[in-house]
Amino acid sequence: MPTSNIIFGDLSDNLKTIFENAIYSKMAVLVDENTLTHCYPRIQTHLPEHQLIEIKSGETNKNINTCEAIWTAMSDLQLDRSSLLINLGGGVIGDMGGFCAATFKRGIDFINIPTTLLAQVDASIGGKLGIDFLGYKNHIGLFQEPRFIYIDENFLETLPDEQMRSGFAEVIKHGLIYDDESFYYLTSANWEDLNWRSIIKQSIGVKQEIVEKDPLEKGLRKILNFGHTLGHAIESFFLSTGRPILHGEAVAMGMICESYLSMKRNGLDPSSLDMICNYMGNVFKPIGLPDRNEEIVERLKQDKKNTGNTIQCTLLSAIGKADYNVTISLEEASESIDFYKGF
Amino acid sequence: MPTSNIIFGDLSDNLKTIFENAIYSKMAVLVDENTLTHCYPRIQTHLPEHQLIEIKSGETNKNINTCEAIWTAMSDLQLDRSSLLINLGGGVIGDMGGFCAATFKRGIDFINIPTTLLAQVDASIGGKLGIDFLGYKNHIGLFQEPRFIYIDENFLETLPDEQMRSGFAEVIKHGLIYDDESFYYLTSANWEDLNWRSIIKQSIGVKQEIVEKDPLEKGLRKILNFGHTLGHAIESFFLSTGRPILHGEAVAMGMICESYLSMKRNGLDPSSLDMICNYMGNVFKPIGLPDRNEEIVERLKQDKKNTGNTIQCTLLSAIGKADYNVTISLEEASESIDFYKGF
Repeated sequence: MPTSNIIFGDLSDNLKTIFENAIYSKMAVLVDENTLTHCYPRIQTHLPEHQLIEIKSGETNKNINTCEAIWTAMSDLQLDRSSLLINLGGGVIGDMGGFCAATFKRGIDFINIPTTLLAQVDASIGGKLGIDFLGYKNHIGLFQEPRFIYIDENFLETLPDEQMRSGFAEVIKHGLIYDDESFYYLTSANWEDLNWRSIIKQSIGVKQEIVEKDPLEKGLRKILNFGHTLGHAIESFFLSTGRPILHGEAVAMGMICESYLSMKRNGLDPSSLDMICNYMGNVFKPIGLPDRNEEIVERLKQDKKNTGNTIQCTLLSAIGKADYNVTISLEEASESIDFYKGF
Repeated sequence: MPTSNIIFGDLSDNLKTIFENAIYSKMAVLVDENTLTHCYPRIQTHLPEHQLIEIKSGETNKNINTCEAIWTAMSDLQLDRSSLLINLGGGVIGDMGGFCAATFKRGIDFINIPTTLLAQVDASIGGKLGIDFLGYKNHIGLFQEPRFIYIDENFLETLPDEQMRSGFAEVIKHGLIYDDESFYYLTSANWEDLNWRSIIKQSIGVKQEIVEKDPLEKGLRKILNFGHTLGHAIESFFLSTGRPILHGEAVAMGMICESYLSMKRNGLDPSSLDMICNYMGNVFKPIGLPDRNEEIVERLKQDKKNTGNTIQCTLLSAIGKADYNVTISLEEASESIDFYKGF
């Protein structure tokens, strides 16, 4: 799991250098209607001859049907094992494009150019690829590293505010689980004054350090799941209603629930819980949850992190410190949802 | 790519030993209607508590729709990351069950119990997993080793003769590309007198030795594709007509075509070509091909082994010796089909 596959900076400079010695027989760029309009023009002239594959944006399209469409397009373009797929987009494009590349003719090279904050600090780092299935998040997938990941913060200029905040949930998470200084810096600064290049580098650094220590998520890497046990269940619920919310919005809600559980079960100081909840309240709008908590709790049973019949969770013991494999009951999960509703 | 994951001998003894210390949270056995009837009873009582997942047999079902059915069944059974899938069947079950396991929740353990000669000597060895797509063989897939492979030749007792001969094509291939002594032994013995246990061990040994030297098919492993360039195109053609032929039948035809090309392009002695063709004629029935060779040649362009616009082929230089990455033209491919028609 090499660190050297992440390249920071202005993409137009970087691409030229890379493709000067390109050995790929063919190249295709995977885009959605948004990245086609806002991001593709930034790289188009810096790429060698290539083809486009366009899919519809959005988590609801991160499914096996879209994979079939991508695989079909790759076949129609006669991509071979020496071809390259360039994933230009957010988490959906990176996760699904990577999955399609890693399984096309048993695997071809792919490059990720994440264009959202969420994808830059989280989704594109660590080799997790996949799609949703039966309404469960990332239910089908595998681990595989992209050949390169290009991080160019200039793409964020065209990103809607709600998308920035969604990605920011993972930045906050990286602080909460591993890097208290970063978290305190965030809480002390105004949103408008944040230095994004420095925040992105720092946040990727946290994720990389954790992933390198445990690439296949046998232990330590599980702390990255903080906020994601309840968060995924909440996200799945909204996906199933046909009114999906953003991943980061769900994770922010999940972090509030799991911070409450951290206080109740894992020694997190009540004043730290207050501080976390206040900051979350500043950054994220509240989102209404269904009256019946079971509609969310039921979905916890399919969480990939489970073993047998227990719900496994990552909880904080302090700001900047997390423990994985904490077993919680379905009742406690439900109680934490009540906490979110009341906060 | 460990050799120690292949276990020979009577399965009822071996299974007990393995599962005495089982650490799996749940277990499912993937079967088709044939292995459910003929093979499952042999292992049923030797397995710990488990569930069945049944699919329809046959290459025409080795597709993404069946994968969706398997993934759905795995979800319904609430398999988690510590669960095990046991693939009980031929190449279709092993390739597709392995693919489903390797991608379910980003990968769970699986065990292969190959029940056909083809799967025992070839499909289950070497970690190639996948499904057919758009009529192209193994178009979507990946490389992943099963946790264990159990080879029990007792399963072959219920195997129809045509299935035995289909698997035997790969045994012949292993001799032709790497092990001339085995090939001469086969040609000198009567079919009825063949010692299957010894043949299977020897044949697996050849494949393993090659795969261990080159697990990801960057070089040497390509010699295993002998007979498969033309063979896959022929198999694809019959699959698209709705009257599929067996994999080994197609490979046998492919080996005759490519032995002809070996004589024409790669220094194979004409008397060796005669010997190969005579032996193939003894073991395999002739199968009629379409008048228009293009119906097969056209399919060569999608072969996974291609780079750019050339057709890459493995050809013999002598019995027991093969060269990979030999470039052939579409005209030569067509000529070799004419040779098959006339032989």
